[in-house]
Amino acid sequence: MSARRTNLPVDARRIAEIVNGLARITEPDRPYTRRAFTPLFLEGRAFLEQCFKAAGLDTRIDAAGNLIGWRKGRKPALGTIMLGSHSDTVPEGGRFDGIAGVAAALEVARSLSDAGIELDHDLEIVDFLAEEVSIFGVSCVGSRCMAGLVPEAWLSRAHDELTLREGIVEAGGDPSRLPSSKRSDVKAFLELHIEQGPVLEAERLDIGVVTAISGITRIEIVVEGQADHAGTTPMGRRRDALVAASRLVLEIETLGFAHAAGEGHFAATVGEFEIEPNAANVVPSRARLLIDARAELRPQMEVFIAEVEVLAVRIAEETGVAITPPTLISDSHPTPGDPLVLATLEAACGRVGARHRLMASGAGHDTAWMGRITKAAMIFIPCRDGRSHAPDEWAENDDIALGAAVLFEAVRRLDGQLQEKK
Amino acid sequence: MSARRTNLPVDARRIAEIVNGLARITEPDRPYTRRAFTPLFLEGRAFLEQCFKAAGLDTRIDAAGNLIGWRKGRKPALGTIMLGSHSDTVPEGGRFDGIAGVAAALEVARSLSDAGIELDHDLEIVDFLAEEVSIFGVSCVGSRCMAGLVPEAWLSRAHDELTLREGIVEAGGDPSRLPSSKRSDVKAFLELHIEQGPVLEAERLDIGVVTAISGITRIEIVVEGQADHAGTTPMGRRRDALVAASRLVLEIETLGFAHAAGEGHFAATVGEFEIEPNAANVVPSRARLLIDARAELRPQMEVFIAEVEVLAVRIAEETGVAITPPTLISDSHPTPGDPLVLATLEAACGRVGARHRLMASGAGHDTAWMGRITKAAMIFIPCRDGRSHAPDEWAENDDIALGAAVLFEAVRRLDGQLQEKK
Repeated sequence: MSARRTNLPVDARRIAEIVNGLARITEPDRPYTRRAFTPLFLEGRAFLEQCFKAAGLDTRIDAAGNLIGWRKGRKPALGTIMLGSHSDTVPEGGRFDGIAGVAAALEVARSLSDAGIELDHDLEIVDFLAEEVSIFGVSCVGSRCMAGLVPEAWLSRAHDELTLREGIVEAGGDPSRLPSSKRSDVKAFLELHIEQGPVLEAERLDIGVVTAISGITRIEIVVEGQADHAGTTPMGRRRDALVAASRLVLEIETLGFAHAAGEGHFAATVGEFEIEPNAANVVPSRARLLIDARAELRPQMEVFIAEVEVLAVRIAEETGVAITPPTLISDSHPTPGDPLVLATLEAACGRVGARHRLMASGAGHDTAWMGRITKAAMIFIPCRDGRSHAPDEWAENDDIALGAAVLFEAVRRLDGQLQEKK
Repeated sequence: MSARRTNLPVDARRIAEIVNGLARITEPDRPYTRRAFTPLFLEGRAFLEQCFKAAGLDTRIDAAGNLIGWRKGRKPALGTIMLGSHSDTVPEGGRFDGIAGVAAALEVARSLSDAGIELDHDLEIVDFLAEEVSIFGVSCVGSRCMAGLVPEAWLSRAHDELTLREGIVEAGGDPSRLPSSKRSDVKAFLELHIEQGPVLEAERLDIGVVTAISGITRIEIVVEGQADHAGTTPMGRRRDALVAASRLVLEIETLGFAHAAGEGHFAATVGEFEIEPNAANVVPSRARLLIDARAELRPQMEVFIAEVEVLAVRIAEETGVAITPPTLISDSHPTPGDPLVLATLEAACGRVGARHRLMASGAGHDTAWMGRITKAAMIFIPCRDGRSHAPDEWAENDDIALGAAVLFEAVRRLDGQLQEKK
């Protein structure tokens, strides 16, 4: 990909400083771990806030716990153009997922100032709270709040005696004023993110302009067998929850392969899996599975959900265990990118000389929630071997900088295109 | 089974007091849980020690942390006849596994005293430390120590910053003097235990005289896949540790069924199973399985171990994950009961009118370790539906009392038979 470019309107070294600075803030024994609602996350936030301020931005934390840097425009009545992503990680995650997008967004603001460019719109740079599945089992907390789409009940979700409500307070937010975090003044939202897949690298392209974000559906299944003595209970008299759950895992994988062979992007994963009592000499009595399924095309997801329901009934019958009807823990539909923003991003790619393609996102992103309240779209940059959510996740700094240059160009163009007053 | 008998030499009500007293000492939210090396276990021990003393026994805790009640004989030079079992439970276990044996053993001592019977041999009642697989991943700690068969390295095993060495100290033992817990003066050992299987109940019998205790082999398998983003990694490019581990579970069950169809008792169970990172949107990178296999016939176990090794290689090849060569965490051979003690137990059954059969034990027991240093054997009493290691484990108190009466008779006979000086 990117040979080093020297004619970009952005400074690649400053992007690297942000990425590397955050990489140092991790659980030392399992890099890179900086989960939302942990002290390390707040340490990363403090570092970012300093960077925002050093770039000349006014900073604040909204009621939902999103960190926002603000640059005033000449015509505030036009509303806000917003750029951003997230700084939290999964356990043993990577250095670029989310972080590259925050660093690139901040670099756009700095480069505009360095070039003496004033925008008509206010510009905001945002680090959304808890984009990854957090300790509370839910994701995209900050961007969902900004779209006014966090159910009140979520605030009472608890983990280790901490509620989400308290976690937002610790992040500097104010759950009692949560509706104030919902925005109606944002006229466009842009996000840069690593692809987290192998396509751009394989095709030697610089930028993926993301036409749609796959819907994500999480389905929980609980298997109830019977605890029995592992030494004395004859093989034929058992109701082993682990054996039944293992069959579910394999059949869910088979369904995933079948749908992936279809038209749109599709993937299915059992990412969480626990058994009880998890003791050497006891036949497992209970197993819990959490399926993560992604579909670019909603009808495909609806078929998959129905198939999983049928599968649970069949395996319960065949093995003699009880299986609860699969529960939809969350179920978001695919989100198309905004046509105007997509066209602007393609034009910006042409302007900075970035080779691009259109593609769908298999991962969920904050952009999917921002798309509910504004014209939103995102771009991908390549990452090595498609690896992500793992310590060996890697993106070339020059690729991030080229993406930041695309955002820079797109922001300037949108600033001119979006002149209708709010 | 047992209609209430009024002509027994033992008092069933006193047995019920012990069983019920220990049942009250449990984690309240998950009865019946009183795991070794926890405060609740020590609380149960304190209760038992009071019961031992109330029965007129001198009490002590040996270097291995075994609680021992002692009743002096007329000819101490003849050595000791020992009765006992264990008071620790598995997580969410039952009220009778081990406990019935301790209660029955204590009742034998009390009944001898009530009847004014002096024995030639010293009599000891023992509550062995940590018969169940403990938080340190090993079982039969106390009886292995008494047989001089605990490896020094085990003492350094740790769980939540506690070592086994420290756990033994907390139980009142003294690991620095561990060799002193090895016994050479025990002339016979007897244990009563619930069957933990369905045979006696189905055949309407009172007592199983246990001819052999199955060997127990624990095999650990670690699957190393690759952590990948669950949304973006194409189905065909994954190395999902959970999918590979699920195949292992199902194939191990198939092997278990095949061996169980053979001549001796055989069972195979995956009782412990964990994955990493266990996060909803990450393809699992690692899985750990612990197999518990039981065989009455050693050659069958050796075939099974070899089959598991071949299986691990094959599934690694077929799925693309790495699977470590299966590790034998523990590997005990089957233990036959002592012929003299078995004959005495059968005669005692006849004397008290207990309908009995000969049978093998699928479960491991402290008797298997005591058999290494003395003439040892055990008896089973029926339990409901063969259920054990679960809260609904149940044995009729009168059945325990009838078993205690068999032990009472057997102890009197062995006291006369074992007159060779130590």
